[in-house]
Amino acid sequence: MRPRIYLFGDSITEFSFADGGWGAALANHFSRRADVVVRGYSGYNTRWALKVLERVFPASEEHSGAGDPLALTVFFGANDACLPDRYGAFQHVPLDEYKQNLISIVSFLKKQWPATRILLITPPPIDEEGRLQNPYLENPLNEPERTNNAAGDYAKACIAVAAECGVSVIDIWTKMQQLPGWEKACLSDGLHLSRNGNTIVFEEVVQKLKEEGLSPEMLPADLPLLSEMDYNDPLKAFEELR
Amino acid sequence: MRPRIYLFGDSITEFSFADGGWGAALANHFSRRADVVVRGYSGYNTRWALKVLERVFPASEEHSGAGDPLALTVFFGANDACLPDRYGAFQHVPLDEYKQNLISIVSFLKKQWPATRILLITPPPIDEEGRLQNPYLENPLNEPERTNNAAGDYAKACIAVAAECGVSVIDIWTKMQQLPGWEKACLSDGLHLSRNGNTIVFEEVVQKLKEEGLSPEMLPADLPLLSEMDYNDPLKAFEELR
Repeated sequence: MRPRIYLFGDSITEFSFADGGWGAALANHFSRRADVVVRGYSGYNTRWALKVLERVFPASEEHSGAGDPLALTVFFGANDACLPDRYGAFQHVPLDEYKQNLISIVSFLKKQWPATRILLITPPPIDEEGRLQNPYLENPLNEPERTNNAAGDYAKACIAVAAECGVSVIDIWTKMQQLPGWEKACLSDGLHLSRNGNTIVFEEVVQKLKEEGLSPEMLPADLPLLSEMDYNDPLKAFEELR
Repeated sequence: MRPRIYLFGDSITEFSFADGGWGAALANHFSRRADVVVRGYSGYNTRWALKVLERVFPASEEHSGAGDPLALTVFFGANDACLPDRYGAFQHVPLDEYKQNLISIVSFLKKQWPATRILLITPPPIDEEGRLQNPYLENPLNEPERTNNAAGDYAKACIAVAAECGVSVIDIWTKMQQLPGWEKACLSDGLHLSRNGNTIVFEEVVQKLKEEGLSPEMLPADLPLLSEMDYNDPLKAFEELR
């Protein structure tokens, strides 16, 4: 069986196979080497993620012969960081609980799959003006339900959890803000990723996985590649399989 | 476990998760309902596909608890249809053998997974001028290694196999040629799909699967959807899971 790379997170993960998405790009990048499996749940925060963790990653898969996944991204926090006094309050999770939840998620995954590289991704920055243009619920106060400062607090907490748990982390909150005009360049509605933003996440994940020894060049192809066949005797490549 | 939809074929399947690709679009379409698993093998014809069939779809997966896949596309013929006297001859498979091979592939899949909807896709049309601009090997004769007529013969054979085996088929060879300027509109190099061509394949597959009762609306979501939650008590949705 081909090894797997899981993407676990909220809508930014769920939508990652839409046009120009970072998940699809990753699947294409690891073509013939690994399956990229998306486990994104729109609107979910870490509290809800904990409720479904055992269903998303059932222990039975451990015994299916597939082996531990190569890697797994954990990309939560954008919803936890909703402000507690705005219309997105039902998604808000206090900062301390977010940290504990993230630690619980990582602990579960490490126990289930000790060989899997776990890669945390911080929530992205927030363009508050973009949020005002794109409320998903009624917003009579005309105040954004998320702020960039709050997202930054959750990003810092995510980085702290990575250090505490000894896993990798991508600080996408900081990375994106290094780009002039990041508010519109990286985000489509102040929160979700534009094509550009998707490319940044894709490149960061590729780079981080490479540092962990996971790149197409370092992984075996599943079956003979055309480029490695003898065109005078292509069937030879398949004899060697047996 | 989330049900699966497999895409089995040559480079047109392998590249289907590249930017604008029909595979990624399908994964996004079935988001939260089914996993779209790509099993595309660049350069492969049906003869080579038969050599790897048992490795690509191992019987052990039958017993993993995942159940039969919902659907499986079989998209071969573009390489079989390489002309036997041009530089792509090493990929050529005679028409009769192509038919027999396709029947063998469908038989194997039907035996392994009786409940799976199998969907054949004919090879796409060929823009011979595009092939002359994009040879993948030395081409001193300056003649295309594929012709549209030959591809059409394989398309007709594919349709005949579908009828004989009682499975669905998409005649993408005919469908694309209904578009004025299809040569450049649907194909990027006379053979592989442009963004437009990818969209056509995606829409045809979606339509055909829908006719077979497979659409996002008809499939259960894996876990509570945000849109169905009670925002005053979101955790209730997870209590009902137990």
